[in-house]
Amino acid sequence: MFKFAAKYEWPKGYTSAAVLSADVDGESPYIWRNRGKKVEMLGEIEQRRFGPRVGLSRILGLCDEFGIKGSFYTPAWIAATYPEILPAIAKGGHEAAAHGYYHERVDELDEAANDKILAHSIKLFKSQLGKAPVGYRSPSWELTPAVHRCLRKRRFLYDSSLMGMDVPYSLDGLPEIPVQWFVDDAPYFRYVGGPTDKTPPANPNVVVDGWMEEFEATREFGSLFMITIHPWISGRGQRIRMLRKLLTKVCNTRGVWVTTAEEIARHHQKSANAKKFAMKLKLVSTDISLP
Amino acid sequence: MFKFAAKYEWPKGYTSAAVLSADVDGESPYIWRNRGKKVEMLGEIEQRRFGPRVGLSRILGLCDEFGIKGSFYTPAWIAATYPEILPAIAKGGHEAAAHGYYHERVDELDEAANDKILAHSIKLFKSQLGKAPVGYRSPSWELTPAVHRCLRKRRFLYDSSLMGMDVPYSLDGLPEIPVQWFVDDAPYFRYVGGPTDKTPPANPNVVVDGWMEEFEATREFGSLFMITIHPWISGRGQRIRMLRKLLTKVCNTRGVWVTTAEEIARHHQKSANAKKFAMKLKLVSTDISLP
Amino acid sequence: MFKFAAKYEWPKGYTSAAVLSADVDGESPYIWRNRGKKVEMLGEIEQRRFGPRVGLSRILGLCDEFGIKGSFYTPAWIAATYPEILPAIAKGGHEAAAHGYYHERVDELDEAANDKILAHSIKLFKSQLGKAPVGYRSPSWELTPAVHRCLRKRRFLYDSSLMGMDVPYSLDGLPEIPVQWFVDDAPYFRYVGGPTDKTPPANPNVVVDGWMEEFEATREFGSLFMITIHPWISGRGQRIRMLRKLLTKVCNTRGVWVTTAEEIARHHQKSANAKKFAMKLKLVSTDISLP
Amino acid sequence: MFKFAAKYEWPKGYTSAAVLSADVDGESPYIWRNRGKKVEMLGEIEQRRFGPRVGLSRILGLCDEFGIKGSFYTPAWIAATYPEILPAIAKGGHEAAAHGYYHERVDELDEAANDKILAHSIKLFKSQLGKAPVGYRSPSWELTPAVHRCLRKRRFLYDSSLMGMDVPYSLDGLPEIPVQWFVDDAPYFRYVGGPTDKTPPANPNVVVDGWMEEFEATREFGSLFMITIHPWISGRGQRIRMLRKLLTKVCNTRGVWVTTAEEIARHHQKSANAKKFAMKLKLVSTDISLP
Repeated sequence: MFKFAAKYEWPKGYTSAAVLSADVDGESPYIWRNRGKKVEMLGEIEQRRFGPRVGLSRILGLCDEFGIKGSFYTPAWIAATYPEILPAIAKGGHEAAAHGYYHERVDELDEAANDKILAHSIKLFKSQLGKAPVGYRSPSWELTPAVHRCLRKRRFLYDSSLMGMDVPYSLDGLPEIPVQWFVDDAPYFRYVGGPTDKTPPANPNVVVDGWMEEFEATREFGSLFMITIHPWISGRGQRIRMLRKLLTKVCNTRGVWVTTAEEIARHHQKSANAKKFAMKLKLVSTDISLP
Repeated sequence: MFKFAAKYEWPKGYTSAAVLSADVDGESPYIWRNRGKKVEMLGEIEQRRFGPRVGLSRILGLCDEFGIKGSFYTPAWIAATYPEILPAIAKGGHEAAAHGYYHERVDELDEAANDKILAHSIKLFKSQLGKAPVGYRSPSWELTPAVHRCLRKRRFLYDSSLMGMDVPYSLDGLPEIPVQWFVDDAPYFRYVGGPTDKTPPANPNVVVDGWMEEFEATREFGSLFMITIHPWISGRGQRIRMLRKLLTKVCNTRGVWVTTAEEIARHHQKSANAKKFAMKLKLVSTDISLP
Repeated sequence: MFKFAAKYEWPKGYTSAAVLSADVDGESPYIWRNRGKKVEMLGEIEQRRFGPRVGLSRILGLCDEFGIKGSFYTPAWIAATYPEILPAIAKGGHEAAAHGYYHERVDELDEAANDKILAHSIKLFKSQLGKAPVGYRSPSWELTPAVHRCLRKRRFLYDSSLMGMDVPYSLDGLPEIPVQWFVDDAPYFRYVGGPTDKTPPANPNVVVDGWMEEFEATREFGSLFMITIHPWISGRGQRIRMLRKLLTKVCNTRGVWVTTAEEIARHHQKSANAKKFAMKLKLVSTDISLP
Repeated sequence: MFKFAAKYEWPKGYTSAAVLSADVDGESPYIWRNRGKKVEMLGEIEQRRFGPRVGLSRILGLCDEFGIKGSFYTPAWIAATYPEILPAIAKGGHEAAAHGYYHERVDELDEAANDKILAHSIKLFKSQLGKAPVGYRSPSWELTPAVHRCLRKRRFLYDSSLMGMDVPYSLDGLPEIPVQWFVDDAPYFRYVGGPTDKTPPANPNVVVDGWMEEFEATREFGSLFMITIHPWISGRGQRIRMLRKLLTKVCNTRGVWVTTAEEIARHHQKSANAKKFAMKLKLVSTDISLP
């Protein structure tokens, strides 16, 4: 009865998959949040700059330690402001993918504006790397049908912003390589002070214990373990150590396909999964009508 | 002096009881919260659809693993939108019970509107299952005297929305099979991002450790262990594993009556408890008068 | 240089003290918060009634288990509405003390209104117990100089609402038996749902581990271990078990004076501490003047 | 490519550094927050007074236990109101440094007002200690280019308010001795009640476990372990015990330079680091321009 609860087919020899993905945001979400305001404050800005200055290089180093390739979603403003970033990602053999311009919420812009941002990202990635990005992740994991349309029009290979499954699926034919809040570093560790920031940064030992449970679960259910980290957050010392503990387990477990989102999307498209997990993209109607 | 602190009588051979209950909400609370608004966003909607697509089937599978029957409270909109849900619940031998239409807060509608929703639910359950629901749980566990009146008028066997006791009790003659926030998955794991979502998803190992303490307490006090889960939340991998740990303990403890809320309500009505724990339903007056 | 960091003198044979105190609030804070509003909702009200119905009796039972006496701060509305409460507290040999009328915030009422509430509490306690309360704790631990004045005028023996020390001290001659948020159950376990309730109920094993650390600290510093619980919160099963673990440790540690706040205030007044830890009650001026 | 991810050079024999820093705030942030309002409440004020009364002396005692020197950032209002504080800090051989007047947010005052506060602090420190402070930490860790300019003009040796690196760095020539939210006591333990305080005080055993992870990370990356505590928060018993556990580890690890921020700034200025980690101070433009 529940056809989408079917088993996902991984490439021969693998029974589940894992992706280390990073959203290389730096200052961009701060700019978007404060757009048009005069801000004289240095606190959060300097905190976020830790990412491009130090954090990203530690994460790339950690990938090298384990010999794995990750997917790095980078806003165009960041790539342009720190022109060493995309080349460093590519040089390590990782996937560099699109992630908006200023890390803008896509639902706050119309379709044309979002489309221009995609076009600009493609151009910028081409100029810095010699090729267009094939993957896209929406800032803040908020997507609209309009942006999804643009992604298909601009021939992106896949999107990685939604949580409707814990295996890859297809929405109107476009592979969706799903994410999950539970294995995102931001809810646990993001802390910039101020009156609205109430939850203290988590103990990384407690977080990684939970993430290992989720990893075990992807082994049991044959699903995708998609970790999402941010260099300005997880480049901090104790979090690098936390990730090392996690990767030690992930990389030493037989049958786990540790790869990029791009490789998973390619596999999805050419396998039976693309049909088995095909759905139509649809909003929900909020035009209610009580009985 | 404290007559309601008396011992509750369970059926012969049992000294406490446990119910695995699920609120099968899916998209419905989102629709109610955003009613009348134009929403173009896919993030939370896709996240919630994980419940009907995958989560519910995993929870039904987990019940089968342990050979237990649970109580599944399902909004009418969900049952109508996913017509495979109620039959799947019934086929597994579980209780399918009413849970509003759009998961609307009952205090935001008048008595007539709430009554129509109950009537509609009964009709829909009859058409899909051949019989009316006997149990009711209010959305968000918020109940009013008006809705309680409707439940009695429409001959529901019991309500399961309040926390005035940790054993079943009677309010104006209607059995109340009590719930408790402490053993609800939503406060720990519900996380949809955005500026108001501050507490990160909990480590399931820490949560289950606390839930086991509560289970031990129901053994000590002879009370009811009423777990409440949501397929879109607890269908996620690490939470299924968490529930398995919990059920392994619950199902292997002698003297625990693991059953549905319906069975407990039937026992309550025919036992001495119905009188011993009988109370009048009453609001509190907020028309204050200081000395 | 830091004269108030001096050692506190406990009665002969004791090197620290511990009080189990309970704020017997039940529905009263809800009434105050919703005063003048029309409320038709039963959720929080029934949850709070668990305290007078069951929770308090479990806490009294737990005290008997350990043969200890506690201090029970009870709003007058609660005492009047549940006339079995004060006698049950007194019968167990515990201290029954004043705690406002509706659990009103004292800073929201003027001095005359607060004074009338104190007068009424004294009268009510006399009528139910044959004697006036000697102790006072302000609702929500918020105190004003005006109420402090009333307490002295009405010859209360002590107040227990402030955190300026972790040993008893004197403010304008009135003993202050200090409290502390860290060992209050409400911040950890109070959970009533709704959009503003973001932090889930804590794991009692984690809480008690921290409370035991604080207990060890009171042993090291010779200070007061003042636990504050609420029957509607800590009467729940797993919390009773948590308190049992804590009391097992407290009551089996040599040199700890486990007693009531009243007894501690009496000791304070007749010892050298009353002078050694004497301070003037004062507000801070917020009429700022920058250099 | 990532030049700032280079190795920091510590004095001979050391491979990382640790500073115990304390922000001696007491009542001052409360005054600033409530400036101009009539406040009759004693709760938070008395709680904060625990710092000057008891907490600071316990922290100074703890430093003596381990034979270490710390950096104590003290608002001028606190130093003037409690004239025993600066001398006690100096007497213990610790660094006394500036921290605003009323713990005002520097971005809420203009450059002239901030400069007057710096001038006043220097004068006050000179009058109480016979010498000017060489270090500065901004209240709430919020800094502006204007205040940074004033610090340079007034010849401060260093600032310690930002998080752009986890080793010392230079901004427009002024050493920045960086802080980090993760190892600040306030996000974990600050709790003053009221409707906006949602997260309960943390278990110190869990916090210290995370802090030790960060300490290990500073060993691995050769970075700075800068702990920040507040006497009114960390002077509480269980937190003194937590700090003792942490310091036992820090002080018994070979190769860790446990010293003051001042000493680190002096080292930074005379070493190759000053050039290697030199950056220009700059805001980010929020005058956005989408592609």
